[in-house]
Amino acid sequence: MSVTRTQVVIIGSGPSGLLLGQILDRAGIDNIVLERKSKDYVLARVRAGVLEQGTVDLLTAVGVGERLAQDGLVHHGISLCFDSSLHRIDMTALTGKAVTVYGQTEVTRDLMEAREAYGAKTVYEADQVTPHDFAGDRPRVTYVKDGVAHEIACDFIAGCDGYHGVSRDSVPAGALTTYERIYPFGWLGILAEVPPADHELIYANSPRGFALCSMRSTHRSRYYVQCPIDDRVEDWPDQRFWDELRLRLDPVSAARVTTGPSFEKSIAPLRSFVAEPLRFGRLFLVGDAAHIVPPTGAKGLNLAVSDVRYLSEALIEHYGEQSDAGLDAYSGRALGRIWKAVRFSWWMTTMLHRFPQATSFDQRIQEADLAYLVSSKAAMTSLSENYVGLPH
Amino acid sequence: MSVTRTQVVIIGSGPSGLLLGQILDRAGIDNIVLERKSKDYVLARVRAGVLEQGTVDLLTAVGVGERLAQDGLVHHGISLCFDSSLHRIDMTALTGKAVTVYGQTEVTRDLMEAREAYGAKTVYEADQVTPHDFAGDRPRVTYVKDGVAHEIACDFIAGCDGYHGVSRDSVPAGALTTYERIYPFGWLGILAEVPPADHELIYANSPRGFALCSMRSTHRSRYYVQCPIDDRVEDWPDQRFWDELRLRLDPVSAARVTTGPSFEKSIAPLRSFVAEPLRFGRLFLVGDAAHIVPPTGAKGLNLAVSDVRYLSEALIEHYGEQSDAGLDAYSGRALGRIWKAVRFSWWMTTMLHRFPQATSFDQRIQEADLAYLVSSKAAMTSLSENYVGLPH
Repeated sequence: MSVTRTQVVIIGSGPSGLLLGQILDRAGIDNIVLERKSKDYVLARVRAGVLEQGTVDLLTAVGVGERLAQDGLVHHGISLCFDSSLHRIDMTALTGKAVTVYGQTEVTRDLMEAREAYGAKTVYEADQVTPHDFAGDRPRVTYVKDGVAHEIACDFIAGCDGYHGVSRDSVPAGALTTYERIYPFGWLGILAEVPPADHELIYANSPRGFALCSMRSTHRSRYYVQCPIDDRVEDWPDQRFWDELRLRLDPVSAARVTTGPSFEKSIAPLRSFVAEPLRFGRLFLVGDAAHIVPPTGAKGLNLAVSDVRYLSEALIEHYGEQSDAGLDAYSGRALGRIWKAVRFSWWMTTMLHRFPQATSFDQRIQEADLAYLVSSKAAMTSLSENYVGLPH
Repeated sequence: MSVTRTQVVIIGSGPSGLLLGQILDRAGIDNIVLERKSKDYVLARVRAGVLEQGTVDLLTAVGVGERLAQDGLVHHGISLCFDSSLHRIDMTALTGKAVTVYGQTEVTRDLMEAREAYGAKTVYEADQVTPHDFAGDRPRVTYVKDGVAHEIACDFIAGCDGYHGVSRDSVPAGALTTYERIYPFGWLGILAEVPPADHELIYANSPRGFALCSMRSTHRSRYYVQCPIDDRVEDWPDQRFWDELRLRLDPVSAARVTTGPSFEKSIAPLRSFVAEPLRFGRLFLVGDAAHIVPPTGAKGLNLAVSDVRYLSEALIEHYGEQSDAGLDAYSGRALGRIWKAVRFSWWMTTMLHRFPQATSFDQRIQEADLAYLVSSKAAMTSLSENYVGLPH
């Protein structure tokens, strides 16, 4: 058994783990990232791509904003499409802020490169990663790499390993309270090398269900349609997808959809999930390891980033000022913002999808919600301030 | 059979029927009000008492604002109470408008007096009121008074006779679409001759359920607590009510509750209901005859008043300009505003009550809704603009 020591072990090399590592590196706090998968696997994952202004600001402040500034698409608004017409919400006019479209994969790549340049240690394809003894003062993390057992002694463990990761599962039964909502539909998403229908995102609620026109770049489109949760990708040849998408948009937007062969197609379930608290002794849960939001409203990655912000501030305070105030406050502070984002994502999802069990009253309330929203500056400001990101 | 003729027959002498009569009287449009009950019965009904600024303005403009200006209590805000603390929402600062507390009974009384002074005809205790032939050009209304059959030939019939009235029931089956939500609890309300706990209303969401501190005047309090829908008034002696009310408020407000014997106590169900459309030939539905909202948010009377505003404008246009454009637009125009108020009342009810079937996720969403609301100027503005009344 090889034994090493570091200050913080970070489990998971997604954007939250890598961003935490990046901030700790810059603060001179020693850390090791353990990742179950290969680097190529991590980089091949297709994920969300709308960054709040606070996320962009933080990435820039910690030295990974260069390519983001160059390739990111700054969006000042979104459009809502319902009742066959398009309603733009000018988020920048309403809040003074904007969002940036920049794929999560690109964020991950930028952080990986920065980490490699700095020379910090990342162990990919680490099997059987297991946190130990985090209830006490001397936590450890064990793993197996290429058949060899390793142990890292550390001060703290950051669980950045997502919903299916080992970190949350390591917490003793009974110590966690979980909250969950499963939505009765999925998102069928495609990527295609075609210019997007609009330069901003279009969120559509049609009698046929939800649709989203999004993009990765000016020449790569990301489209989604709400579908039954038990549909299979094979049920959706490209032509059916494009036909269905157009039927859910207003005529002008539908005519602007450029079709082409999809090079990625998948169906994702939608859920809201929160586990509380986020701290168990010297183990801290971060991002998807503790909470999942449906993609409507694009909060998932941004929420992970705000967790990282709080936790990194707390760790820097611990090592720099010998104060545990930030660590003690982490769970409550992060959960306050998490629940607001969970609320927003739930509300956006509820307002924009067709629910199989909805009564005719529910349906009219949804229509009234949309009609009121686009008639009210206050309501559009409320949506916008959540979309661009509530204050940290 | 006694046969008379008028331009508009108004069925129902509640505030909407009387207000419509008042506006038509002033425009020189002949009308007769038919009321099933006695005048004293109508005046003894206890109803809501929060008037939107637009309602106050209309009542004032049509000559019944004098006592309202003298006795009405102008409120510039409300307070929300949750998590044992009070959060005031300064509606006037956020919207420039206010609401006025003035009992619906007082509005009715002012309108009755104005109608009597004008000399317009009201038939109380009119039995078997029945609208006829409103699909054609020559509608009639029949009724029986003191055993004598009467018929009124007219141009239009205004159904202002509430949820249980004959007007909506006269519409042929199949011509109406209805939308309904029944809430799984009731409001136990009391009136007591004691000063109110606060000079404004307090809406409280506690783990024990909803409570509302309201008032009719500076010396008469109106309090409510959410209760199981099958509770009986006999289950709630005064002392139990006062104890329960205090347990649902923050400590400061609880200490400010002055108790005393109740002189009215009742349990009311909560429902949302809308019937569409509001026009059937020459019969128009107005107010509660077509829509019911739960009392949370105080929209019921105000919504009836906005129906009256639209219908009276349309009738004045018909007689004055020989144009039916307003009459043709009435249903759609009124329903646009109705659904926004139905949405608001549903949302306030959902946010402030405890629902027996709520999952722990639902409960946390409710808490996040409240926490976000009082942290956001935009969200408080949105609530306020609905509370003081959306534009007509």
